[in-house]
Amino acid sequence: MPDSSLSGGEMALVAVILVISLAALVFAGYLVRAVTAADQGTEKMREIARAIQEGAAAYLRRQFRTLAVFAVIVFVVLLILPVADGGWGTRIGRALFFLVGGTFSALVGFIGMTLATRGNVRMAAAARGGGYQPAFRIAYRTGGVCGMITVGLGLFGAALALLLFDETAPVVLEGFGFGGALLAMFMRVGGGIFTKAADVGADLVGKVEAGIPEDDPRNAATIADNVGDNVGDCAGMAADLFESYAVTLVAALILGQVFFGSVGMVFPLVVAAVGVIASVVGILATRPGARDTTGLAPINRGFFVSAVVSLLLVAVASFTLLPGVGDVEDLPVSPQVLGFVAVLIGVVLAAAIQQLTGYFTETSRKPVKDVGRSSLTGPATVILSGISLGLESAVYAALLIGGAVYGAFLIGGGAALYAVALAGCGLLTTAGVIVSMDTFGPVSDNAQGIAEMSGDIDEAGAQVLTDLDAVGNTTKAITKGIAIATAVLAATALFGSYNAQVLVALEEAGTSLGDAFSLVNPNNVVGAVLGAAVVFLFSGLAISAVSRAAGRVVFEVREQFRRHPGIMTFTERPDYGAVVDICTKDSLRELATPGLLAVLAPVAVGFGLGIGPLAAYLVGAIAAGTLMAVFLANSGGAWDNAKKMVEDGAYGGKGSEAHAATVIGDTVGDPFKDTAGPAINPLIKVMNLVALLIAPAVVGLSVGEDADTGLRLGIALAAVAIVVVAVVVSKRRSVVVGEMATSPDDAPLTASAP
Amino acid sequence: MPDSSLSGGEMALVAVILVISLAALVFAGYLVRAVTAADQGTEKMREIARAIQEGAAAYLRRQFRTLAVFAVIVFVVLLILPVADGGWGTRIGRALFFLVGGTFSALVGFIGMTLATRGNVRMAAAARGGGYQPAFRIAYRTGGVCGMITVGLGLFGAALALLLFDETAPVVLEGFGFGGALLAMFMRVGGGIFTKAADVGADLVGKVEAGIPEDDPRNAATIADNVGDNVGDCAGMAADLFESYAVTLVAALILGQVFFGSVGMVFPLVVAAVGVIASVVGILATRPGARDTTGLAPINRGFFVSAVVSLLLVAVASFTLLPGVGDVEDLPVSPQVLGFVAVLIGVVLAAAIQQLTGYFTETSRKPVKDVGRSSLTGPATVILSGISLGLESAVYAALLIGGAVYGAFLIGGGAALYAVALAGCGLLTTAGVIVSMDTFGPVSDNAQGIAEMSGDIDEAGAQVLTDLDAVGNTTKAITKGIAIATAVLAATALFGSYNAQVLVALEEAGTSLGDAFSLVNPNNVVGAVLGAAVVFLFSGLAISAVSRAAGRVVFEVREQFRRHPGIMTFTERPDYGAVVDICTKDSLRELATPGLLAVLAPVAVGFGLGIGPLAAYLVGAIAAGTLMAVFLANSGGAWDNAKKMVEDGAYGGKGSEAHAATVIGDTVGDPFKDTAGPAINPLIKVMNLVALLIAPAVVGLSVGEDADTGLRLGIALAAVAIVVVAVVVSKRRSVVVGEMATSPDDAPLTASAP
Repeated sequence: MPDSSLSGGEMALVAVILVISLAALVFAGYLVRAVTAADQGTEKMREIARAIQEGAAAYLRRQFRTLAVFAVIVFVVLLILPVADGGWGTRIGRALFFLVGGTFSALVGFIGMTLATRGNVRMAAAARGGGYQPAFRIAYRTGGVCGMITVGLGLFGAALALLLFDETAPVVLEGFGFGGALLAMFMRVGGGIFTKAADVGADLVGKVEAGIPEDDPRNAATIADNVGDNVGDCAGMAADLFESYAVTLVAALILGQVFFGSVGMVFPLVVAAVGVIASVVGILATRPGARDTTGLAPINRGFFVSAVVSLLLVAVASFTLLPGVGDVEDLPVSPQVLGFVAVLIGVVLAAAIQQLTGYFTETSRKPVKDVGRSSLTGPATVILSGISLGLESAVYAALLIGGAVYGAFLIGGGAALYAVALAGCGLLTTAGVIVSMDTFGPVSDNAQGIAEMSGDIDEAGAQVLTDLDAVGNTTKAITKGIAIATAVLAATALFGSYNAQVLVALEEAGTSLGDAFSLVNPNNVVGAVLGAAVVFLFSGLAISAVSRAAGRVVFEVREQFRRHPGIMTFTERPDYGAVVDICTKDSLRELATPGLLAVLAPVAVGFGLGIGPLAAYLVGAIAAGTLMAVFLANSGGAWDNAKKMVEDGAYGGKGSEAHAATVIGDTVGDPFKDTAGPAINPLIKVMNLVALLIAPAVVGLSVGEDADTGLRLGIALAAVAIVVVAVVVSKRRSVVVGEMATSPDDAPLTASAP
Repeated sequence: MPDSSLSGGEMALVAVILVISLAALVFAGYLVRAVTAADQGTEKMREIARAIQEGAAAYLRRQFRTLAVFAVIVFVVLLILPVADGGWGTRIGRALFFLVGGTFSALVGFIGMTLATRGNVRMAAAARGGGYQPAFRIAYRTGGVCGMITVGLGLFGAALALLLFDETAPVVLEGFGFGGALLAMFMRVGGGIFTKAADVGADLVGKVEAGIPEDDPRNAATIADNVGDNVGDCAGMAADLFESYAVTLVAALILGQVFFGSVGMVFPLVVAAVGVIASVVGILATRPGARDTTGLAPINRGFFVSAVVSLLLVAVASFTLLPGVGDVEDLPVSPQVLGFVAVLIGVVLAAAIQQLTGYFTETSRKPVKDVGRSSLTGPATVILSGISLGLESAVYAALLIGGAVYGAFLIGGGAALYAVALAGCGLLTTAGVIVSMDTFGPVSDNAQGIAEMSGDIDEAGAQVLTDLDAVGNTTKAITKGIAIATAVLAATALFGSYNAQVLVALEEAGTSLGDAFSLVNPNNVVGAVLGAAVVFLFSGLAISAVSRAAGRVVFEVREQFRRHPGIMTFTERPDYGAVVDICTKDSLRELATPGLLAVLAPVAVGFGLGIGPLAAYLVGAIAAGTLMAVFLANSGGAWDNAKKMVEDGAYGGKGSEAHAATVIGDTVGDPFKDTAGPAINPLIKVMNLVALLIAPAVVGLSVGEDADTGLRLGIALAAVAIVVVAVVVSKRRSVVVGEMATSPDDAPLTASAP
């Protein structure tokens, strides 16, 4: 390994980067003031917004309280787990940075969401009288806060670790990445279950049974539905992208150190700092112009401006910082070219994924039109066409992502994994803009909800909000595609770090790898099957958790309609808080099983079957996870927009049979695209990080003088036992919707109507 | 490699095995006579049966004509492709045995289907007056014919190759396996598209639009629907299991030769011969007894009798034939124990999969009940619960299959792959019984259809047929689970053979493998992602092919209703042949794209990216394929039975909202369980065989004196280009149902009704 202590100049550079990260936070503060200064609209709007704010804050508080217990346990485990190449100082640093990563992840989610629940009502107020530009600006800047905090905190953590720990920073940062990823996964799963339980429940009992429109104030689940948009789409996504950002930096630092020493660690940070600058430029450049025909145009412009700025600055950084000649074996290009081209690959990948996802989920393109058209033959053909669209689109996304990894492999030569990690950094130079785009979605969705519920909106304002909501749907779908791409690149790079860890640990134990990592060993084939299996199980668990929680929402709303007939005639006010409460409790309870599965499955495979099958497990999970995540996201996105297409008048419009068919498609798609699909991103990274963290322990218990088969298998069995118990317990809870409905005093509303 | 020329005694033993294989065919002939001797029912029944027979035979004839062209091309390619370790004799033998394998596969499908289209009407006739026992016997014996031909021809081919080619038999048998697998894949895909296009089309226009029951003679698609049951479930499944049988034997022979020389080749044949005997016993033992409460009891009894007989005989064979001490390194048990325990693992796996699939798809168990209950909240929850059930059940199946492979790995030690192949042989010792069980499904389904359409059935007889149809649904689901297990074991073993081929080829080229097969190379990660991607793309293509073809069926049936109003009032006879014709043409056209993808994707990966990524590609395909196949099969099976549950009176019974919701679930499940899902079995084997066949050529063009990068990449690009063109062409065809319906003179029936 090259010398990897930072030189004085490099230290100074990292200090500058630390300042840049703080500047990002200052810029976020500036955006906050710009947003909060806007008018908050009518009293009714404020009242609704307050209910959403309270519900969302209450949920996150409870979630953080629950997760704190979990974080403490992991903290202790991290102190116990051996470090391949370092002492107690590194161990403690890693455990502490685990807490820092988790806290930052939570903070990004919390601040982003808090601001989103302020921005929504201001956007609704600004839209009145047809205020397209101000409404747009508020929504996008609200997103901008989220984006800047994401990149600011991510960069701050990494730079701080490097300043404090110098050459042991990569190991310490494993903790940072793991904390971020773990929190993000729980927020993704919990938020995803919350948002879709409320949404599906509200739709089932509102649109389907009672025949009242979406966001109707008589539906007791509407506030929960809007809270869900914030805790799921906003807090969850922000934490997820923060975590991608952190994990990608971690992987790049680990591998950079292996291949190029200290400059290999500093360079990824420089790329990230460049990303901060590019994001500021991009966010400022995003303003609707006179010639823009859709709201998507300025958003795309902001993205491309940011990408171009990044590339220019990265080119300068590569050729000033990186050496012209490397001493890595088999390097087909100079380190300078490697650095620049790898980042370029990432930036191009982001743009390509954006186009591809747009093609498969925009209303104006053929795929969604085909799904919409299939509504004429009923729900079955809507479902089938959406599923085949999702399956196929996943393949094209996989080809793009695979192509990027392969491209990095070709230019990387002996340092291929570092090139992959840098491509991941490139993908994330535009992270600030991407998070802004994404948050645009829930904010405009909420603004529409608040306007609808309050009734305090004119026609021109309603049209503005409808148009911007459609834009938000598309930006949400696009950022999901980019999120999975970052996840795959980060996971592939982490996987390389796993290999590096194993090699170091084996060397310490005085043995070598042999053919343990060979693809053709049958035990490794089993490992790959298990990796793919966990992706399937995780998805299935997430989807059924939504069904169960939605069932309870339906039950509660029905109950309220029945006991308080005045709700239907607007003379009584439904108890919104009760539904928010159900969603909060259920989603926190339901996230345990998939969460434990993600953390413990690699533990079981690693300690039970060994380092080879664990490596294969990660490959299986990456392969199946990539495809499953895109499949779920794009099927869901296409159904959502097919419904919008019919609602806009196609095939009979609202109220037609075709509309009913697309509503069914959309309901099926909800947990696909907003619960299971997006949670796969943090899942594959959490599993890779767990593997990375346990690698030295697995090797230690398998070979050398500390080998202890009993303890090793005992750990594996304990992990399996906990997962099995969790799955069984969650099955016991499966009081499905229909079951409750079979009791005589809880028939579905339509059935009880005379 | 140990000496692998057959000794005189071994030659004699193989000759005996050849005789046993012929005896299996004779026993099939005996069963044929027993079936055809039965009464053919009323004139009306015969007439309907004749229409089905003609449609089915016409389809297969056209299919074989189309495939013959393809077979000739592959034959030529096989002559050109180099053989790793043999001369022109071996090459010609391999190409000829490719034709033999293909022909046998076609023959199994053709004979099985021909008899099924004879057995169906006789079963319907036998059921009249409540003839439970005779109806059962005819259905099961019809299946028995199929089963005995499958094992007879498979064993005959393998034994013949061994007698003729001695130690070069394994290479020759690669051709045999490939021919069988390729034909089976096309029959699975083509038959699957045919059957579900007819079924979905008939349901959409009949049940949903016109409101007439299933199998109503006024529906022009009914005959096509019944033809489809035969060409899909019967011919396709028989060819598929034949192919599994052949491929498993091939893999066992290749690996047996590597590890144990000639006896390693003879032993798998002995296991298969034992399976023939066990199957005869099992088929004869399957007769409904007085104490059987369901039709499933005697069928399960037959299976278990056959499994026990197999195990006893295999125990004898292991301890007489195999050596007590092997000279393979790292063998944890003696070859005798290895042989017996590996086969035992396979037999146990078959029984376990049977129980597991039963649990997830039987009407009386919790999972299907949950899906049924979710029908109370509408189609969306039915779809969601079915999908999460499928995803989860796939994981348990993967755990069982993975456990079996891992078990074989543990006892196999240095010869682990041989143990995996033997476990595959063990799984297939009951193949004769399994095929009988499976064919039971379409025969009883058809019998019910014929009885319904002819109207010549009394109430008691109708009840018998309904009961046996439900039994058939379950046996069909169970055999699908076993089929995928055999596919995974065969693929894992084949994958080992791929490794062996690569090593031989590298040695000839004077180089070594290095870390080309290492899991952690990024290019290998890309390979794994591509392997999983092909499974997703293949599934998506198959599902959308069904949607397209079903659209055309709907169009035709609507057209007939409109032009001939007398059909609705029974005064005009619909043109059944027209729909059969559409299904035939469309399914043959639609099978090209997925078929080309399966054959050419590994060619593109192998020649384009190299032997490492190709190996990873196979692992990715096995991992994702296992899970996807079980997911699709079990979701579909559960929806089918949830519908049956409601039709039997639950939640409002036929005509209720709950029923409508489950019909939608069933329609979505149709292409899942009968087109895409089952076609994944032959898919993963075809891809493994292609990899095996091209391995020497890929190595030859990559290293050594014949290396030619231009030619190598040229072949890859050509393969990619053909697949891309095929996909684009199939997209162009996507005249989806709705599109046709938007023209004014083809609105859906419901919309045009006053």
